[in-house]
Amino acid sequence: MKRLIVDMDDVLADTSQAILEAFNTINHTNYNKEYFRNKVFYEFINQAQFESIRPMIEAKGFFADLPVMADAVQVMHDLQAKYDVFVVSAATEFPNSLEEKYHWLANYFPFIHWKNFVLCGDKSIIKGDIMIDDHEKNLKTFEGESLLFDAVHNWHLEGYQRVHNWKEIELLLN
Amino acid sequence: MKRLIVDMDDVLADTSQAILEAFNTINHTNYNKEYFRNKVFYEFINQAQFESIRPMIEAKGFFADLPVMADAVQVMHDLQAKYDVFVVSAATEFPNSLEEKYHWLANYFPFIHWKNFVLCGDKSIIKGDIMIDDHEKNLKTFEGESLLFDAVHNWHLEGYQRVHNWKEIELLLN
Repeated sequence: MKRLIVDMDDVLADTSQAILEAFNTINHTNYNKEYFRNKVFYEFINQAQFESIRPMIEAKGFFADLPVMADAVQVMHDLQAKYDVFVVSAATEFPNSLEEKYHWLANYFPFIHWKNFVLCGDKSIIKGDIMIDDHEKNLKTFEGESLLFDAVHNWHLEGYQRVHNWKEIELLLN
Repeated sequence: MKRLIVDMDDVLADTSQAILEAFNTINHTNYNKEYFRNKVFYEFINQAQFESIRPMIEAKGFFADLPVMADAVQVMHDLQAKYDVFVVSAATEFPNSLEEKYHWLANYFPFIHWKNFVLCGDKSIIKGDIMIDDHEKNLKTFEGESLLFDAVHNWHLEGYQRVHNWKEIELLLN
């Protein structure tokens, strides 16, 4: 059975939406994702003229209530029949996120066994057959097949097979 | 630079000692590690006649104050010059341990970067060159070299290169 490695932020959870809402709240702005079609997302929101969102991301609570991506629960559930599915999330940068991510996953994806959940920093330590992730840094060190999950911060990135939603993943992997 | 994968419980932290103390406390017994030289540790402590320690291990606090293994801090510090050292701990079985393990590690081993810390369930997902662990289930799925760290629950196990303390590891790996 092939091992499928699935990222959490911006793949299972719409973390960029929560980041953008946090940014808008503290900066009294009203940007939506489409505004960043021709901009570099993190570069834009980290400009000195804006209030930093980092304290909000570091605080307890930020990762507890992230919106779940459309169709992720059903497709992840069905993929278990064909793949050994692991959820691998970069989390150790934000220690307050560790338990929140665990409980978020257990809430939306109760069929994922605790054995198949990884919280880490550098994903180059992970081995598997297929990786779905939104960050080039994770895909480029992975030895198996790569799928880039479309995200507001990777619209400029080329050279990877891009998937835009979970229905596309279902068609590709089932 | 070779990647060295180091386990936490019973390798960096003396978790068996804490388990044995918890067991003695709730069962009003006075066993020490040497008593288990010719017994199977987990089989013995999980007998129906004894009060289970599982609720204590699942509760908040158990993993917060584990004793650190002798010489582990100094040897781990020095090994960073020669190896890319990752600490990989099975933790997702006990969600309350996640943040406690992070803070324990940050306290005793502040020189380990958050990028090099992994909390997981099944370690067969981990790749690297050398693994130091006390459990056969982790060593037997690892593709690199294995070192079995001597522990009260693995005294019966054969077929692995056994190390008894951190000074032995220093001699072997430096």
